[in-house]
Amino acid sequence: MLQAGIIGATGYTGLALISTLVSHPDVTVSLITSNTYKGKRISDIFPLLKGRFEEILVPTNDSHAGKCNVYFLCLPHGTSMEMAKKLFDGKALIIDLSADFRFEDVKIYEDAYIPHTAKELIPQSAFGLPEVYREKIKGAKLIGNPGCYPTSAILGLYPLLKAGYLAGDIFIDSKSGVSGAGREPKLGSLFCEVSEGFRPYGVGVHRHEPEIQKEVSKLSNLKIMFVPHLLPMNRGILTTIYSRLNKPLKTKDVLALYKKTYDGEPFVRIMDEGVYPDTRFVRFSNYIDISLKSFDDGRIVIISAIDNLIKGASGQAIQNMNIALGFNETAALTALPQYP
Amino acid sequence: MLQAGIIGATGYTGLALISTLVSHPDVTVSLITSNTYKGKRISDIFPLLKGRFEEILVPTNDSHAGKCNVYFLCLPHGTSMEMAKKLFDGKALIIDLSADFRFEDVKIYEDAYIPHTAKELIPQSAFGLPEVYREKIKGAKLIGNPGCYPTSAILGLYPLLKAGYLAGDIFIDSKSGVSGAGREPKLGSLFCEVSEGFRPYGVGVHRHEPEIQKEVSKLSNLKIMFVPHLLPMNRGILTTIYSRLNKPLKTKDVLALYKKTYDGEPFVRIMDEGVYPDTRFVRFSNYIDISLKSFDDGRIVIISAIDNLIKGASGQAIQNMNIALGFNETAALTALPQYP
Amino acid sequence: MLQAGIIGATGYTGLALISTLVSHPDVTVSLITSNTYKGKRISDIFPLLKGRFEEILVPTNDSHAGKCNVYFLCLPHGTSMEMAKKLFDGKALIIDLSADFRFEDVKIYEDAYIPHTAKELIPQSAFGLPEVYREKIKGAKLIGNPGCYPTSAILGLYPLLKAGYLAGDIFIDSKSGVSGAGREPKLGSLFCEVSEGFRPYGVGVHRHEPEIQKEVSKLSNLKIMFVPHLLPMNRGILTTIYSRLNKPLKTKDVLALYKKTYDGEPFVRIMDEGVYPDTRFVRFSNYIDISLKSFDDGRIVIISAIDNLIKGASGQAIQNMNIALGFNETAALTALPQYP
Amino acid sequence: MLQAGIIGATGYTGLALISTLVSHPDVTVSLITSNTYKGKRISDIFPLLKGRFEEILVPTNDSHAGKCNVYFLCLPHGTSMEMAKKLFDGKALIIDLSADFRFEDVKIYEDAYIPHTAKELIPQSAFGLPEVYREKIKGAKLIGNPGCYPTSAILGLYPLLKAGYLAGDIFIDSKSGVSGAGREPKLGSLFCEVSEGFRPYGVGVHRHEPEIQKEVSKLSNLKIMFVPHLLPMNRGILTTIYSRLNKPLKTKDVLALYKKTYDGEPFVRIMDEGVYPDTRFVRFSNYIDISLKSFDDGRIVIISAIDNLIKGASGQAIQNMNIALGFNETAALTALPQYP
Repeated sequence: MLQAGIIGATGYTGLALISTLVSHPDVTVSLITSNTYKGKRISDIFPLLKGRFEEILVPTNDSHAGKCNVYFLCLPHGTSMEMAKKLFDGKALIIDLSADFRFEDVKIYEDAYIPHTAKELIPQSAFGLPEVYREKIKGAKLIGNPGCYPTSAILGLYPLLKAGYLAGDIFIDSKSGVSGAGREPKLGSLFCEVSEGFRPYGVGVHRHEPEIQKEVSKLSNLKIMFVPHLLPMNRGILTTIYSRLNKPLKTKDVLALYKKTYDGEPFVRIMDEGVYPDTRFVRFSNYIDISLKSFDDGRIVIISAIDNLIKGASGQAIQNMNIALGFNETAALTALPQYP
Repeated sequence: MLQAGIIGATGYTGLALISTLVSHPDVTVSLITSNTYKGKRISDIFPLLKGRFEEILVPTNDSHAGKCNVYFLCLPHGTSMEMAKKLFDGKALIIDLSADFRFEDVKIYEDAYIPHTAKELIPQSAFGLPEVYREKIKGAKLIGNPGCYPTSAILGLYPLLKAGYLAGDIFIDSKSGVSGAGREPKLGSLFCEVSEGFRPYGVGVHRHEPEIQKEVSKLSNLKIMFVPHLLPMNRGILTTIYSRLNKPLKTKDVLALYKKTYDGEPFVRIMDEGVYPDTRFVRFSNYIDISLKSFDDGRIVIISAIDNLIKGASGQAIQNMNIALGFNETAALTALPQYP
Repeated sequence: MLQAGIIGATGYTGLALISTLVSHPDVTVSLITSNTYKGKRISDIFPLLKGRFEEILVPTNDSHAGKCNVYFLCLPHGTSMEMAKKLFDGKALIIDLSADFRFEDVKIYEDAYIPHTAKELIPQSAFGLPEVYREKIKGAKLIGNPGCYPTSAILGLYPLLKAGYLAGDIFIDSKSGVSGAGREPKLGSLFCEVSEGFRPYGVGVHRHEPEIQKEVSKLSNLKIMFVPHLLPMNRGILTTIYSRLNKPLKTKDVLALYKKTYDGEPFVRIMDEGVYPDTRFVRFSNYIDISLKSFDDGRIVIISAIDNLIKGASGQAIQNMNIALGFNETAALTALPQYP
Repeated sequence: MLQAGIIGATGYTGLALISTLVSHPDVTVSLITSNTYKGKRISDIFPLLKGRFEEILVPTNDSHAGKCNVYFLCLPHGTSMEMAKKLFDGKALIIDLSADFRFEDVKIYEDAYIPHTAKELIPQSAFGLPEVYREKIKGAKLIGNPGCYPTSAILGLYPLLKAGYLAGDIFIDSKSGVSGAGREPKLGSLFCEVSEGFRPYGVGVHRHEPEIQKEVSKLSNLKIMFVPHLLPMNRGILTTIYSRLNKPLKTKDVLALYKKTYDGEPFVRIMDEGVYPDTRFVRFSNYIDISLKSFDDGRIVIISAIDNLIKGASGQAIQNMNIALGFNETAALTALPQYP
């Protein structure tokens, strides 16, 4: 069994990593860290783990290098790149769930975030979107795990972008459950500030916009607009994308293109014509469900759904680990979606 | 006191009409009908009314003509036009909350719905969107109360359409609480089929699309695409509209245009730059909150929020009544939004 | 118009006070304070107030004495008694929504809370439960507004306690919406820590237990056990009380006793036999709905429902003000419950 | 692989059975029935199953005898006993999720439900509560799977009842998520009739009361009162039980008794003193979490939490199957609880 460390284990992505990895046949979680809860038992923080995973949290610091075969960094951006510098040794695999290693072009990162202090690692890193970059992920030692919104948007657009069929503006209207905001006590994440309400946020300024745009720009010169909204629910992202084809295509033909592009992908499900995604149908799973409808005049709407904590974060991180370390890509990721 | 009748009083719009009208200074509800619950006391159906409004429900049939000064029809389309024929006498005011009298062009109605059986009344009817058609509403004896989604979309677009500033596709991404689906027991409206989920529906085929399009077409030759989604919450619609201006304008200048266009409107609130609507901030009120952001390259996003049962249905119906009958336009409609 | 001040105006009780008082015929809110948001416009904190109430928040300090005719203190316990000392002058009415003036016996208060630093004011204060203490409230200059849970429990028990009909243990199982926890960012109040979950808290140690017990003890020597639970919803308390009668009585006879005891009470609704309260049917109103069922062997279950922010806090505070100042007791409190 | 049939597969318990059994090492689902959806693909009814389990639904009738090794009956009571008569052959295992085979004493069943038409099978059936009746379940060919509320209540009481330590009334206050009401379109299960509300139902008349009482009566002569409430959430039951010990015991000593009684039970978790169950911590798992607090005067409160669809229905059914057929008792049931 390889040893896995989760650096910053008491947020929702940390919990999702633990919950998923306990059933992994080749990996065991041997290190969990938290500065807030250091010295405590993780099952006292998350009583659902009682009897199943009861390790003690140790401080998040730079003493953990060399102890694990794979590290998952669940830290804020900035903190994460500093930790990556300490842990990177070309042997252990580092999967960073922050934004710090998602941008090949450091300038785009620095415009959206902060000065990058581990630039030397950027060329070593792969953008962890397996459906697009599987070959780069194999053998990588540093993986920048994509953002939740970008995962839903890029995979929704990729077949058309790759085929060169899109023209015109791309409007990306995303809606996310509250767990995307993390487990920090914040006014805007309070039950009473979210429940029975719905609102946009970060209009035109959300940092996931450049992350989506840089991928779109690799395959076209089209411009995206990204508007996220906050859903009164725990988990799930649904992204509705509006654009135009450069020539009209029938819905079934575009769906066929999607099926072909994603042929063999274990976690992409292209729905039948007239059936559309629902976040309930991917919840707790690593699936992305995609559907679309095109119109006679070339307009098209594409809809995708993921669980923001699984395919949008921890599940995709484990998928990346499986690929990078040569495991079965679906190991520990076969949980079915669950509802109600 | 004028006498009001609510035909079909046991749905959510009926309840909202009763709850609102009890505080109207000039109107009293003297007739409530329901075939399902006829003979029962309304306060036994809705115990919240106990001690405040305890009338007996009578059957929904054509015996009610001539009894009231104003009738609110909360019936399915088709049934509603039949009832309108029975009740219309040129004296009583009829406000129809179904789609039957929203379309000046019967062909558009019949393409989207069913054959119209009261065509002779269509020329008598006004489309009940006060901010656009106040003059027509004054003195009208038949008002087609707008749909909830169209109210949010048309008022969001109207200033730019009127000014002739829009160009390019108009993509309308709407999200509604479940009460928009009514109070009929349906699988898709069950708590467990909605809660912790989010999905689009009626993609490209929803009947509110032609209702929005016909208003847009009066002021431009632009085409809309309308995609509604179901929110896991009770009340509220948020509509996010994506389009392009025919020349770039600053956000503050477009906001100024909106403030000017809606100057004096008692229920339209244009938000400050950088502040966006939240359905929580209009809930239980007749307000529509609108904001927007424009981009250097002419792209624009407009966001509006309403309570689908108030400004999107019963509140707007009462606003229409107030206008048509010469009452203070805000009578009974001054309730503040409420949260949490 | 009398002048009202709300000390600590940016929590949920402050918002509910403002929203309710805007429609009061005899009182106007002339002072709102907040240290966190001082200098800001209240309508920027709560955009729902836009266009309706847009005052500037001033700091919460002791400079406000003598400026208002009535002060509502929405402050934490401890802070509240200090502020009361500064504001109390025997002329202005002070209504304290904290626990500081709810206990006639300071020892009980100090056992449950902290040392009391304004003991001299306790004899001046009335416990603001109008259905029990209306006569003391009239003319009082200091009112300790009851806790939300105690309101629901005491009014549920009062008729039987007063009649001397109860015997045996009193088990009080209460369930509250999240707004009862206030608007402070706390882990336990996050959407993702509450939604799709249900849990007890403060088992056997909640501070509302002595507040309920002291009222029960005035009328009997029975002991209560109080267990509160957190509901995944915004507003509302439902309290289910289990006990025994000292001799069996039919349900209808006990209901008759309740109707007689609360005869003329404007905000107490005793439901018909077989009908039980639902928090939806009192939401946004000042009502308490009560029902019960007794069994042949003397066991009884009593169920009450309130809106925790209205009858459980701000609405009851305004009811107390109306009584103390000689206004119509229902002034500003006639809003109907609302759902969905 | 043994063959399993799910009779009535399109409700929530059917879905939970399928979702769980897909990972069972020794059993495969070879038959799924539904009259409403016969001829349809189950993955078209529940798109979450797409790509994982896509069988065709066949009609629910009596032609399925002899085809499977184990049958799960997810049918209404009455219908279920008729089907059991057709399927029972002393070879196949029948697990009935309705109430039809939960009562050893047919009189209690008939008082609460309807005349029993398969009385001859009752002596063959075991009450499927493994923690109490494991030995009877081994080798049984007909199992009456317990109700959801009774599972939570009986397991919460069992150690004290068995030890003979309880005295006085037992008040059982239960709260359930909406999925307990099934997937039939009913007014009371609509999102807008449940969300942001909380209410009791079936007060003193719920059919789970005699099911709990008959188990209590086997070990004591105490009387229970059972009051269920409807929670605005999908899954989970929390039961709070109030009673008295016949002599005071410390909390830790009672907890020790519970740990000893349930020693070795794979799905019972006794929490540490001062920690209480939350439905979030058992959701999607087969666990029951139990805690309690006793008081100096002998009063006690016991709290248990389960997922009503798993330990309260389908998970327990599979646990029973595992025991009856000699499989590993935890096979297919090791899923961790999940939140948020």
